[in-house]
Amino acid sequence: MSEVGIGLVGGGYMGKAHAVALSAVAAVFDTALRPRLEMICTTTPEGAAAKARQFGFARSTVDWRTLVADPRIDAVVIASPQDTHKDIALPAFAAGKHVFCEKPLGLGVVESRVMLEAAQRSGLVHMTGFNYIRTPASQLARQIIAAGEIGEVTWFCGEHTEDFYADPALAASRRTRGKANGNMGDLSPHIINAALALMGPIRSLCADIETVHRTRPAPGGTEAVTNDDQGQIMCRFVSGAMGHLFISRVATGRKMGYAYEISGTEGALRFDQEDQNALWLYRSRDPQGRQGFTKILTGPDHPDYQAFCLGPGHGTGYQDQIIIEARDFLEAIAAGTPRWPTFADGHMVNQVIDAAWASHERRGWVDVDPLEGEPHRS
Amino acid sequence: MSEVGIGLVGGGYMGKAHAVALSAVAAVFDTALRPRLEMICTTTPEGAAAKARQFGFARSTVDWRTLVADPRIDAVVIASPQDTHKDIALPAFAAGKHVFCEKPLGLGVVESRVMLEAAQRSGLVHMTGFNYIRTPASQLARQIIAAGEIGEVTWFCGEHTEDFYADPALAASRRTRGKANGNMGDLSPHIINAALALMGPIRSLCADIETVHRTRPAPGGTEAVTNDDQGQIMCRFVSGAMGHLFISRVATGRKMGYAYEISGTEGALRFDQEDQNALWLYRSRDPQGRQGFTKILTGPDHPDYQAFCLGPGHGTGYQDQIIIEARDFLEAIAAGTPRWPTFADGHMVNQVIDAAWASHERRGWVDVDPLEGEPHRS
Amino acid sequence: MSEVGIGLVGGGYMGKAHAVALSAVAAVFDTALRPRLEMICTTTPEGAAAKARQFGFARSTVDWRTLVADPRIDAVVIASPQDTHKDIALPAFAAGKHVFCEKPLGLGVVESRVMLEAAQRSGLVHMTGFNYIRTPASQLARQIIAAGEIGEVTWFCGEHTEDFYADPALAASRRTRGKANGNMGDLSPHIINAALALMGPIRSLCADIETVHRTRPAPGGTEAVTNDDQGQIMCRFVSGAMGHLFISRVATGRKMGYAYEISGTEGALRFDQEDQNALWLYRSRDPQGRQGFTKILTGPDHPDYQAFCLGPGHGTGYQDQIIIEARDFLEAIAAGTPRWPTFADGHMVNQVIDAAWASHERRGWVDVDPLEGEPHRS
Amino acid sequence: MSEVGIGLVGGGYMGKAHAVALSAVAAVFDTALRPRLEMICTTTPEGAAAKARQFGFARSTVDWRTLVADPRIDAVVIASPQDTHKDIALPAFAAGKHVFCEKPLGLGVVESRVMLEAAQRSGLVHMTGFNYIRTPASQLARQIIAAGEIGEVTWFCGEHTEDFYADPALAASRRTRGKANGNMGDLSPHIINAALALMGPIRSLCADIETVHRTRPAPGGTEAVTNDDQGQIMCRFVSGAMGHLFISRVATGRKMGYAYEISGTEGALRFDQEDQNALWLYRSRDPQGRQGFTKILTGPDHPDYQAFCLGPGHGTGYQDQIIIEARDFLEAIAAGTPRWPTFADGHMVNQVIDAAWASHERRGWVDVDPLEGEPHRS
Repeated sequence: MSEVGIGLVGGGYMGKAHAVALSAVAAVFDTALRPRLEMICTTTPEGAAAKARQFGFARSTVDWRTLVADPRIDAVVIASPQDTHKDIALPAFAAGKHVFCEKPLGLGVVESRVMLEAAQRSGLVHMTGFNYIRTPASQLARQIIAAGEIGEVTWFCGEHTEDFYADPALAASRRTRGKANGNMGDLSPHIINAALALMGPIRSLCADIETVHRTRPAPGGTEAVTNDDQGQIMCRFVSGAMGHLFISRVATGRKMGYAYEISGTEGALRFDQEDQNALWLYRSRDPQGRQGFTKILTGPDHPDYQAFCLGPGHGTGYQDQIIIEARDFLEAIAAGTPRWPTFADGHMVNQVIDAAWASHERRGWVDVDPLEGEPHRS
Repeated sequence: MSEVGIGLVGGGYMGKAHAVALSAVAAVFDTALRPRLEMICTTTPEGAAAKARQFGFARSTVDWRTLVADPRIDAVVIASPQDTHKDIALPAFAAGKHVFCEKPLGLGVVESRVMLEAAQRSGLVHMTGFNYIRTPASQLARQIIAAGEIGEVTWFCGEHTEDFYADPALAASRRTRGKANGNMGDLSPHIINAALALMGPIRSLCADIETVHRTRPAPGGTEAVTNDDQGQIMCRFVSGAMGHLFISRVATGRKMGYAYEISGTEGALRFDQEDQNALWLYRSRDPQGRQGFTKILTGPDHPDYQAFCLGPGHGTGYQDQIIIEARDFLEAIAAGTPRWPTFADGHMVNQVIDAAWASHERRGWVDVDPLEGEPHRS
Repeated sequence: MSEVGIGLVGGGYMGKAHAVALSAVAAVFDTALRPRLEMICTTTPEGAAAKARQFGFARSTVDWRTLVADPRIDAVVIASPQDTHKDIALPAFAAGKHVFCEKPLGLGVVESRVMLEAAQRSGLVHMTGFNYIRTPASQLARQIIAAGEIGEVTWFCGEHTEDFYADPALAASRRTRGKANGNMGDLSPHIINAALALMGPIRSLCADIETVHRTRPAPGGTEAVTNDDQGQIMCRFVSGAMGHLFISRVATGRKMGYAYEISGTEGALRFDQEDQNALWLYRSRDPQGRQGFTKILTGPDHPDYQAFCLGPGHGTGYQDQIIIEARDFLEAIAAGTPRWPTFADGHMVNQVIDAAWASHERRGWVDVDPLEGEPHRS
Repeated sequence: MSEVGIGLVGGGYMGKAHAVALSAVAAVFDTALRPRLEMICTTTPEGAAAKARQFGFARSTVDWRTLVADPRIDAVVIASPQDTHKDIALPAFAAGKHVFCEKPLGLGVVESRVMLEAAQRSGLVHMTGFNYIRTPASQLARQIIAAGEIGEVTWFCGEHTEDFYADPALAASRRTRGKANGNMGDLSPHIINAALALMGPIRSLCADIETVHRTRPAPGGTEAVTNDDQGQIMCRFVSGAMGHLFISRVATGRKMGYAYEISGTEGALRFDQEDQNALWLYRSRDPQGRQGFTKILTGPDHPDYQAFCLGPGHGTGYQDQIIIEARDFLEAIAAGTPRWPTFADGHMVNQVIDAAWASHERRGWVDVDPLEGEPHRS
């Protein structure tokens, strides 16, 4: 039984999610390679030591350079803030480590291009952390579309909507400062990734982006919000299909509104992450008078479900998505070749965001650059 | 008890709906003015006579000029094809008749402007047939927004989606020929009316319109489709709110997808005509941990429900919307003043459609003309 | 074109529903026989005259004997309180009138047996007013079961739940006095009728019935509630299937909870009147991994929908159920033979209620009497 | 940091679930006591060794006696078949081990009484594996009822319905042989536990139980099914509330139908495990015209959610329920005192099942024995 020494950068929300996933993945999937939790890096020595103890890492550090250079570490999981991604990933590749990096891939398209180039030069495994597309339901949606079960797709409508900043009385914070932390920079990547995964590349788009609440309470008064709250994108995919994306952090009432509706010439799909264990399928060829959207509950017949439970409808959750990512990262390392979604996929998402901003500024349609070279797609 | 002599032009789908409504409205609402079914006009003498018998009209004709000129007729209901609206409405006003005209109001913005001017000059009652906004649920939505229950509205997303042309094997027909019969011309008015009713006027928009299935089977081969199948509109309302509309006759699986989602700073609303007796309301001020979308079933507490049934949740249907329209038309005649939605509202909808086509052709944003004068708004 | 002279007894909730239905039915269904609204009977001369004017009846009376004896009246619709049904129906048959009687059929099984015998002796048309089973969705459910689409039915679960007496602070009223006005007497008939219509006769049952709120506020203090609030019935159908019924007027949150779930060896059905335009169908033979409950929206493919609207998903409502009843009553008169549901069906419902009370009192299982003779079943 | 040596008996469905939970629990909850995976016991040496490697246990065995006696093991998790529970638990207590035992607790009420007595005599920690009641949503339901938010509860309706034996063509197996493996013996415990947890003890009940498919295909022909397929229970709780339970393994279309509806004098609750991240709450005191069932998505405001994810609506799944159980088992060991649900709760469930069989056989109502002594209830 071979092991992979893991270094984890980040002990917050996503850091914990990856730590739990790395603890559980071998038991869930009986992976050939098994993670050995070598070192965690967080911001204070006490915090890092506490997280190491909680998560089961052998050592801790406050310097990611130490972690990246450590000879017992074979692979690095980057779950630290977006503005650190590039600086960690590049030396990691240089030190011969495989890299899993949380979305978004760096601070924008310029950084992600550099990261992608470094990843491709390295010959190592690279992966971007788009976890929501890993649910059995969304994997099933990809299969259904790819198999032509709904015919030729003619319309895609997606959203990522939450309401954590809907209340204008909420105070200014790191998240209300700086383009990268805004709604398009931070919240849009997951649903753009879903659009690309389900529909293929976007050819052109037209976007409208805004800051709904322009000031926020701050100590001693108010503070200007320097990034965006919500935005929408009309697009055409390379396939010819028409599409729309809506992304909002002020969508009152929405908690995990990662949702899409897809129409094809022979059927349709509907999904909402708020009920992540169901996929709704309409089949045009069902008998006359018996047609309608069928609520398919995920189960052992669907991708990656069975490892979590043998009974259909028993349900997987948020944490299980991260376990699936960990399985794929380990399998990619075992195979010595990247697996979808790679840094190329992370970069393509940034290209769409970049094009959306360009369109918003020009008030019109713009083309999205095709990705040169050969992206790794599952 | 006073009566209003009614002449109905059209005996098809909408003609029948209005005939049934006129038969039932006095019993349902105990209206002061009661309709007297004087004459119906359809295309053949036999058909007209049969419809008169079925619907209870005293006389029938194949010539709307005869109907419009008849001295026992006080009010004309126009439920004939779109390209006849102007030609019937103008002489009707000239003859001193009140006019109810089905949506869309004429063939486009040029005709509807002429019709609106004639209506306003006449001093008579004029009304446009936007029936879906009449459900108790959508009337309740208007009340909730107007009362500020969801705060300041920041996002409106609406759709009118059906799938009656989703199958590419469906033959060409009148509906696949000519701009006015296309998706934007024929299907979009209801949801544009909803957007205006719920949100107020649109300031600017950017649209993308397409013909998904460019040829259709026809006798002896195929025929080019000469109008559009689906389209989308990004917009900004005069209020500042961001919006989106999607209209499609090829939305596989959707039967009556007149649906909207509205976010505000203190709540949110969701509605789908496929379950027309429910309105979903989210209140940000509900207690912590007890928040969520509440499924309000319409009942006697809500507008115009009680006349149909004293029990909540018992439900109204499509036909009942037309009965509510008939009640308002009769009340407007009794009051001698137009009631919402008037020809001004029908014309404003056409202005938005016109702007959408202009935007689509220019590939960019366009402003929507403000309506001059003083429209009648409820 | 032949007419049927109609006399309507009752101008309240159900009286109005029938009056509206009689106004609209000919236009909706183009019936061969057309109703002529001859006379309405309510409790005061002024009220009766007002109702006649509102509903379009030619004459009014406060004495149902006058109405029943009137030579211009061919058929009587009884929509007055339950304790008047027998006294009106018997002389109506004796006078040669066809009779439509609202549910429940008389005050209990003793009265309904007498009414049924009179109806059968008369050779006239008799019908009981079970309107909820008339929705296109519930008619479709009957078709699906009868066609064997869900195989052999193994389980039926039905409820009629409302919450109009859930609040213990609601005052005592006529509805809280007397067995016939209680939950079993007044609310249970519709869902028992549904059980019989969908599943066939009940062989045996075991019931538990209770008064949840035993006193109610009354002028000057409190008053004892002398009837029941909720009850449940376990049963076995003659088919062998197991079943359960729950009936409650204190089911907080339920407004029109006429709902059922039915399992068969090859499929299943779910229905809830609160969303009366949808029927949920599960087919065991759908492809592996694509099975689930399909939400079928009613449309022109389904029974009696098309007369109301040509578009699927546009929806019918409460009032439309009564129009369907009126159509069947007129057609039965035209054919000279009763149509389902007849007085036999009303009596069978009363037999089940009677058995439920017997079971409750004995605290055990009892058999339900089979109906002698040949009931009219559609 | 203290550790607890864990021995796990069983490497099948539930064995794996507990193994994964024990791998992840410390990282998820930062527990004071941390599990040390000492030994797993399955049926073959090769299988046991493979499971030990997959799940991370130090050693393996095929003899649970070895495991129970091992000095490095402090606590035993029993996830082997029902007929082994008693034989393992008794020597485990005798050897001073804490015991977690999967539901149902032994083969029936006779065994569970013995197990409970042994547990209570031992002074050790004992817990029964009722995982479904651990979801944040069902924990929230308990809180809401306990806090009186829905007033006095007047009706409870629960079901545990699956369809794994709905197809009559499915072959006979271990599950179709012997009372303990039947529907009441195997499937009913979870929902009975839910009824007791949410409503308190049951006073009396009346049950009907049946074998829907009496023979099953077997090698060379058919085989008689010797246990039950579905059953229903009418009951009265000690609180006075009326209740109903339905349990079925032939409920076509149902996959994880652990569902309940609860009515109270001031509100109501609805839950279905097939959408385990939502609890529906109706509040009678919401404003007039704004009442309805609110779909509360679970989030950090609700019990045990936050350890899995900081974002509401992101969702927990089946496996997470087992992690919560592991946390409670560890905390109980740390505290030296049993935590709900103990063996007393497992035994009370068996008492209800026993009473249901007695009622079924007598065809009438029976009382449920009150549990003597002082059960541990959270």
